[in-house]
Amino acid sequence: MNKLGKLIGVSVGPGDPGLITRRGWELLNQPEMVWTYPVRNEKSDSFALGIVLRSGLELPAEHTPLIFPMTHDLEKLAKAWIRAAQQVFELLTQGKDVIFLVEGDASTYSTFGHLAKSLKGLDKNVEVEVVAGVTSFSAAAAVVGNPIVEVDDTLAILPAGYGVDTVENLLNDFDSLVLMKVKPLMDDLLDMLERKGVLADSVFVERVGAPDERVVRDLLSLRGEKVNYLSLLLVKNPNRVKGEIQRGCRKK
Amino acid sequence: MNKLGKLIGVSVGPGDPGLITRRGWELLNQPEMVWTYPVRNEKSDSFALGIVLRSGLELPAEHTPLIFPMTHDLEKLAKAWIRAAQQVFELLTQGKDVIFLVEGDASTYSTFGHLAKSLKGLDKNVEVEVVAGVTSFSAAAAVVGNPIVEVDDTLAILPAGYGVDTVENLLNDFDSLVLMKVKPLMDDLLDMLERKGVLADSVFVERVGAPDERVVRDLLSLRGEKVNYLSLLLVKNPNRVKGEIQRGCRKK
Repeated sequence: MNKLGKLIGVSVGPGDPGLITRRGWELLNQPEMVWTYPVRNEKSDSFALGIVLRSGLELPAEHTPLIFPMTHDLEKLAKAWIRAAQQVFELLTQGKDVIFLVEGDASTYSTFGHLAKSLKGLDKNVEVEVVAGVTSFSAAAAVVGNPIVEVDDTLAILPAGYGVDTVENLLNDFDSLVLMKVKPLMDDLLDMLERKGVLADSVFVERVGAPDERVVRDLLSLRGEKVNYLSLLLVKNPNRVKGEIQRGCRKK
Repeated sequence: MNKLGKLIGVSVGPGDPGLITRRGWELLNQPEMVWTYPVRNEKSDSFALGIVLRSGLELPAEHTPLIFPMTHDLEKLAKAWIRAAQQVFELLTQGKDVIFLVEGDASTYSTFGHLAKSLKGLDKNVEVEVVAGVTSFSAAAAVVGNPIVEVDDTLAILPAGYGVDTVENLLNDFDSLVLMKVKPLMDDLLDMLERKGVLADSVFVERVGAPDERVVRDLLSLRGEKVNYLSLLLVKNPNRVKGEIQRGCRKK
């Protein structure tokens, strides 16, 4: 019987292959590894794989797309995770080590956690390694040239879909917001940011690090525009009044 | 007259030299670069430089520590930033390109933003490049093997010094918290996490990726213990009730 292989989630960063880590790079250059990578359906390209191929690496002999449909239907998602886990497990039982290519960072809004969990559900002894990566918001802030948080700042990160009211309330309590998945709510968000007087302190970044990256500082120019699914808003509230220092730090 | 050199903030990740990015690595391997790196005082080691030296690279011919004292005194800090900016500017006017080694990610609780801002204050035409990196919390979550946020989760990141009450309130509104600089408040935080019933969903990580990294899941064992300045708490509240879906997303 073969020794069970291990699953390695390799975070490849949000788009620029230069942001792949040295550890990730080392693993991607091991020819005996099997690569797996997420696709939305059988016909679609994998964004994560695209990042790696832009680095100049080629697909290894063995590689398999894993289907993770774009849906909020938890039942469909759970089925997809289990099916993907079974595909990976089959490879592991052949003694192969399997890489799963993760766009961005494996611990931040990634499917990797579900894949790893489903795999542990099949065999709790499966070894899983996670290679951390650069998040889209760190990469976006670097491109913009403006830090997200400094010294005693507070930061909230959330899908914009929680609604404009929620975002507006958080703006009172946090120095900095990262709004993910802004696509369906862009116009409402712009109205609110304008009303709060923080438009000039906000930046829109789409597909950061990819060849078609877009950085928009004049946010009003986005009104009525269609934006990509892979886009985010970096919002700052420089007017927020901070609390007092408590034990060498701040009290709210 | 020399062409003005540029300043490059190279994020080297939180401790493991394997988390340096390919772009960072490429820059660090250019022998004509001048390295600068933060130290607390003239006698102390640089944590950021330590990460790079652990990778096997050696200090280039030209290198300069920049002093950033550990203080909350804004006047002292501002003086240090300006002094550091002047040192860098002197090198740039000689036509040299200067790397500043950034621990973690340059956009997330880093001194790099202040250095860059102070430098632009000396000459607004100075070119500054930022190479994004892996944050301590992404690296910590990877080591722990538990994602920070998934799907529609919300995340708040803040220095724990805002106080236990603030943290407790945020626990009601967020699925996941990253508490930075937990050192001065550890015991009070532990009491609160125990009272809220989320101790089992919280993990303490110290100096992630460094040779003396420490991961503590049994948080109560930390009571009364002294912890390192470079430590954080990953806290989750699995009991939080989420809002409704709004436009394919969630309403709070």
